[in-house]
Amino acid sequence: MKKYKKADFGVDKIRRFLEPGPVVLVSSAHADERNIMTMGWHMMLGYDHVGCYIWDRNHSRELIRKSRECVINVPTFELIDAVIGVGNTHGPDVDKFEAFGLTPAEAKKVGAPLIEECYANFECRMVDDSQADTYSLFVFQCVKAHVATSPKYPRTVHYRGDGVFMIAGENKSYRRKFKPEML
Amino acid sequence: MKKYKKADFGVDKIRRFLEPGPVVLVSSAHADERNIMTMGWHMMLGYDHVGCYIWDRNHSRELIRKSRECVINVPTFELIDAVIGVGNTHGPDVDKFEAFGLTPAEAKKVGAPLIEECYANFECRMVDDSQADTYSLFVFQCVKAHVATSPKYPRTVHYRGDGVFMIAGENKSYRRKFKPEML
Repeated sequence: MKKYKKADFGVDKIRRFLEPGPVVLVSSAHADERNIMTMGWHMMLGYDHVGCYIWDRNHSRELIRKSRECVINVPTFELIDAVIGVGNTHGPDVDKFEAFGLTPAEAKKVGAPLIEECYANFECRMVDDSQADTYSLFVFQCVKAHVATSPKYPRTVHYRGDGVFMIAGENKSYRRKFKPEML
Repeated sequence: MKKYKKADFGVDKIRRFLEPGPVVLVSSAHADERNIMTMGWHMMLGYDHVGCYIWDRNHSRELIRKSRECVINVPTFELIDAVIGVGNTHGPDVDKFEAFGLTPAEAKKVGAPLIEECYANFECRMVDDSQADTYSLFVFQCVKAHVATSPKYPRTVHYRGDGVFMIAGENKSYRRKFKPEML
């Protein structure tokens, strides 16, 4: 499968890839276990902070709570089979890297593995799990970002529910209509 | 401007329109004031719960905190000028409905107005602002949903930062690849 050439990217600019709302793959590791989950419920909570909904039925939740780390990986349409497969497979039963042809790569600042085939990888440390019991909400701070050098705009997938995905379409700049301080 | 024909929609199914990550317009009202803000940072926090990032520099924040209500409106590409205009205009200075040609309509369960020209309108009550000071995070419960009867998949806009929007592209069903309990 295609692997992107990547470069370091500003951790305070990761919203360029998360704010549009793509489905992401969250990788985690603790002790001798590793896992991947598919996640559609996430949001920016500041320029380098991300809120993530990680359900208590996700096996990854335990690995993430214990390690207090994860990697948020941004897949593109080419990985749709892996995105669906990961989302439909329960963690401890299989190694999802092997099952779905994904390559783990060493992260720089966290123990969880990057997924090489993804367009972007955001290494994250958990900074707040105070709303975990109430809303399954975990807040992460991105501490290192790797982003493909091309294309500029990834063809991400966005989940509509009921088995339907929207694929990222046309990109248009309206920069001239923005006040400078709003850019 | 085009107005959609709408029908009542299940409040536990609104993720079909929010999970893909569109920019939304949040309308609010308190006493004799009303306002609209453009919002790109939001997430599902349960099937009828939505987390929203509402910055303390947004004038809407005060109206929403005082009324404990808002409407989350989903615009489509036809409204791009209003989306940008609302995002680039500060609340108390102008009436954004008048300034951007948007029509306020009475909601059923909240005091904030619906925006008629939007594809969907989700009437919301605030259920949690405990993370407002820390992360500008407000949690709302949708109490009434209105969704256009056609088209099935709206051509929403998704913010990439730097004045660039991605427009929702092709929709593909992979229903056959999902386990029934994952749909």
